[in-house]
Amino acid sequence: MEGLLQPPRGTRDLLPPESILKDRVLQKLKEVFESYGFFPVESPAIELWQVLARKAGEEIEKQVYRFKDKSGRDLALRFDLTVPLARIVASRLDLPLPFKRYQIGPVWRYEEVRAGKRYREFWQADCDIVGVSTLEADAEVLALGCDGLEKLGIKDFYIKLNSRQVLERLLKKLGIPEKLFLPVCRVIDKLDKFPESTVLNELKELGLKQPEKLLKLDEGLLEKLKVKAGELEEIRKLAEEWGFEKRIRIDLNLARGLDYYTGLIFEFKITGKEEVGTVVAGGRYDGLIGLFAKKSLPATGISFGIDRLLSVLKHQQKTLTQVFVCLVKPELRSKAVEICQKFRRAGIPCELDLKFRPLSKQLEYADKLGIPWTLFLGPEEIKKGRYKLRNMETGEELQLDFDTCLKVIKTQKQI
Amino acid sequence: MEGLLQPPRGTRDLLPPESILKDRVLQKLKEVFESYGFFPVESPAIELWQVLARKAGEEIEKQVYRFKDKSGRDLALRFDLTVPLARIVASRLDLPLPFKRYQIGPVWRYEEVRAGKRYREFWQADCDIVGVSTLEADAEVLALGCDGLEKLGIKDFYIKLNSRQVLERLLKKLGIPEKLFLPVCRVIDKLDKFPESTVLNELKELGLKQPEKLLKLDEGLLEKLKVKAGELEEIRKLAEEWGFEKRIRIDLNLARGLDYYTGLIFEFKITGKEEVGTVVAGGRYDGLIGLFAKKSLPATGISFGIDRLLSVLKHQQKTLTQVFVCLVKPELRSKAVEICQKFRRAGIPCELDLKFRPLSKQLEYADKLGIPWTLFLGPEEIKKGRYKLRNMETGEELQLDFDTCLKVIKTQKQI
Repeated sequence: MEGLLQPPRGTRDLLPPESILKDRVLQKLKEVFESYGFFPVESPAIELWQVLARKAGEEIEKQVYRFKDKSGRDLALRFDLTVPLARIVASRLDLPLPFKRYQIGPVWRYEEVRAGKRYREFWQADCDIVGVSTLEADAEVLALGCDGLEKLGIKDFYIKLNSRQVLERLLKKLGIPEKLFLPVCRVIDKLDKFPESTVLNELKELGLKQPEKLLKLDEGLLEKLKVKAGELEEIRKLAEEWGFEKRIRIDLNLARGLDYYTGLIFEFKITGKEEVGTVVAGGRYDGLIGLFAKKSLPATGISFGIDRLLSVLKHQQKTLTQVFVCLVKPELRSKAVEICQKFRRAGIPCELDLKFRPLSKQLEYADKLGIPWTLFLGPEEIKKGRYKLRNMETGEELQLDFDTCLKVIKTQKQI
Repeated sequence: MEGLLQPPRGTRDLLPPESILKDRVLQKLKEVFESYGFFPVESPAIELWQVLARKAGEEIEKQVYRFKDKSGRDLALRFDLTVPLARIVASRLDLPLPFKRYQIGPVWRYEEVRAGKRYREFWQADCDIVGVSTLEADAEVLALGCDGLEKLGIKDFYIKLNSRQVLERLLKKLGIPEKLFLPVCRVIDKLDKFPESTVLNELKELGLKQPEKLLKLDEGLLEKLKVKAGELEEIRKLAEEWGFEKRIRIDLNLARGLDYYTGLIFEFKITGKEEVGTVVAGGRYDGLIGLFAKKSLPATGISFGIDRLLSVLKHQQKTLTQVFVCLVKPELRSKAVEICQKFRRAGIPCELDLKFRPLSKQLEYADKLGIPWTLFLGPEEIKKGRYKLRNMETGEELQLDFDTCLKVIKTQKQI
C-alpha cells in the first residue's frame, strides 16, 4: 500500500514542468478542435452504473470504480467519454445535427499500471460527430487527428486503418463462421501486445484449423480472394481530398473495439515510438446511441490519449513567470507592488518577494524557478524612473524605463 | 431516482452556451492566476481516505463519496483542492518557497442540492501561497481575487473580512471561555443561512447567558472593549498599497472554517446578488500542512466557486464557429474541403456540410447554431476565385476573394 503522501496507485500529481506542458497541450488541441467546428461539452465524472453498464463489456465491468452514494444510488466513475456523449445526445434529440462536440477530462479504469503507458486515472480528449452516416465524417475526424498531432510538433506518425465491413467479408471468405467473428477479432486484436504463439493457441481454442493464416492479413489477400475493399478504397480517396493520404497504412489485422465499432477503425502511431502504444484512436459506432435513445443515430469519433502524448513530448518550461521584481529595501515595497501590478495588467506574469528576504535569497529563488528576467528596485532607480533589468540566462543588464522593460520582455517572451 | 438519461442528482451536463462560457471563464481566471506567478498543479480526483480524513471534520466526513477499489484500498473523491495541496507540499519539502500553485477542477460533496447554488459535483479554482507567514501573501491573494472578478466583468463586489486572532480576543473579552471558542464560532457562522432565533437557541444551548450580544459584533465594539484590531488594521494598510481598500468590509461575525483557518478569513460577495452566496472565499491555514509533513508550513489561499460564478454571468455565445461553407453542388466538395482547411489553418473556426444536404437545410443548420458567416461555393465562384460571404445577422452579402473573406471575418470576430 502506498504511503500517506503518495496519490493512490495508478494516479499521479502533476507539477511543473509536466503540468505546464499538459496545460499547453490541451490548449493547442482545443484550438484545433474548435477550428473544426467542435464545441465543448462537459459531463460529470460520476454516472449511474446502469448507464455505464449499457456499453461496458465483461472486461470493462471488471475495471470500473463502482460504489453506492449515501442514499444508495448505484454509481460509478466514467470509464470513457463516449457513453456520457451517447446519454447526452439521447436525452436531447432536438439538437441540430450533425452534433460535433469535444470533451476533455479524466476517465478511470482499474487496470494493471504501467508507468507512462497506463494509469488508472487517465485523460482523454475526444471529438465526435453524431448524425452523419457517410465517410465524410470519418475523413474529417482523421484530418483533425493529423492536425492535432502536427500542432503539438509531432511530424512523423501514421494511421493504422481498418474497416469492420471489409474484415467481416474477408473472414467469411476465409471460412470463419459468422458467430466466431467477434471472438476471433478479440484474439487477433491481441497481436500487438502478446507473442504470436499465445494468439495462435487462443485461435486454436476457438476451433480454427489454420490459425496462422489470420496472423498476417494483407491487402494483397483482398485482391486474391476477390474481397471488395469498399470502405477502405473510399477513405483513401477522401484522404487525398483532405491531404492526409500519406499517413494511411491499411492494416487488416487491426481489430480493436469491435464490440461496438461498426465501420472504420483506426489507431495513430508515432514512427519509431511504437512502444508508447496508440496515442490517438477511434472509429465509427453507429449502434451505441440507439442503446439509449428510441431512435438510432450514426456516430464517429476520435480520442487523444493525453498521458501517452505527454510521455513523448519534451517538457522544458519550468515556469510561466516572466519577471521577478527584486526588492533592495523593504521600505520600497509599495513601489514594488505598484510596478508588479503594472506588469500583471499588461499581461506579463510577474512575481515580487513576499518574504522580505535578502537580495541574494531573492535571486536564488528566481533562479531556481527559472524566471527569465529580474528587475531591481532601489531608491536610485525609483527616483530616476529607470530600472535595472537583468537577463537571468546571459547575466546582461540594462537600465530602462518601465515601458521599455515591458517591450523588451514581451518581445523575448517564451511561449 | 433520476431517469437513465439524466446525470446523477447533484451533477450536470454542460452544453453550449454554458459550456462555452465556462471554458472562457476558466481561461480568463488562468490568465490572472499566471500573471500573479501561480503555476498549474494537478492531483487525482481520488485520494486515499486516510489522507482526506486528516482534514475532514465530522460534517465533511458525512459528505464524502467513499469506496473501496478492487484490491480493497479505502478511497474517496476529493472534497476540496486544499488537502491534495497539503499532501503534495508535504511530499516535496525540497520545493522552492514560496510555492504558489493554482489548481482548477471538480470536487465532490454529498450535500443537499440547490439549483445554481449547490451541486454535489462542483468546480473550484484555487490559488494558494505556501511558505509565507506574513500578511503580504494574504494581500496578494485578495488582490488576485479582485482582479479575477474584474476580468470576468464583475465590477460591483465587496470582501467580507475577519481575523481569527481578533475574533478570539474579542470573544475572550466578552467572557466566552476558550474551550467554547470553536463551538460558538460554528454557531455564529450559521447567521447567513438560518434565522436569528435558531442561532440564538443554539448559543443558549452552549450555556451562554447573553447570546444576543454575539449577533452583531461591529468594529465599534473593538474600540469600546479596547480589543486590539491588529491584523485587521494591518490588512487595511496593505489593501491601500494593493489598491483594493474600497472593497473591504470588516465583519466580525464572519466565522467560517475556523476548524482549520488560523488567521485572516474572507468571503467575496456580489453587491445586490448576495442570495447567490459566496462566489470567492479563502483564508490563512498555518496548521494544515503540518498534519502531513514533519515540519509545519504557513499557507494562505483563495478559492473561486466556478458554478456560482457561472450562475451570475450571462452566457450568450452559442457557437465558436465563425463561418459555414455552403456547398451548392456535391461535386464541388473537394474545393469546399480545401477552402475549409484554409480557414482552419488561418485560425478561423469553420464548418462545412458533411451530409450533402440541400442548400436551404445547410443554411437552417448554420442559423440554428448561430454561426455568424456563411460562404457560398458554386462553380461560378470557384472559377472567379471570388466567393459570396453572407453576414447571417444582417443578411448583407459581399463578393470577395479568399484573403479578403479572411480579413473581414477576423476583424469582426466574436471573442
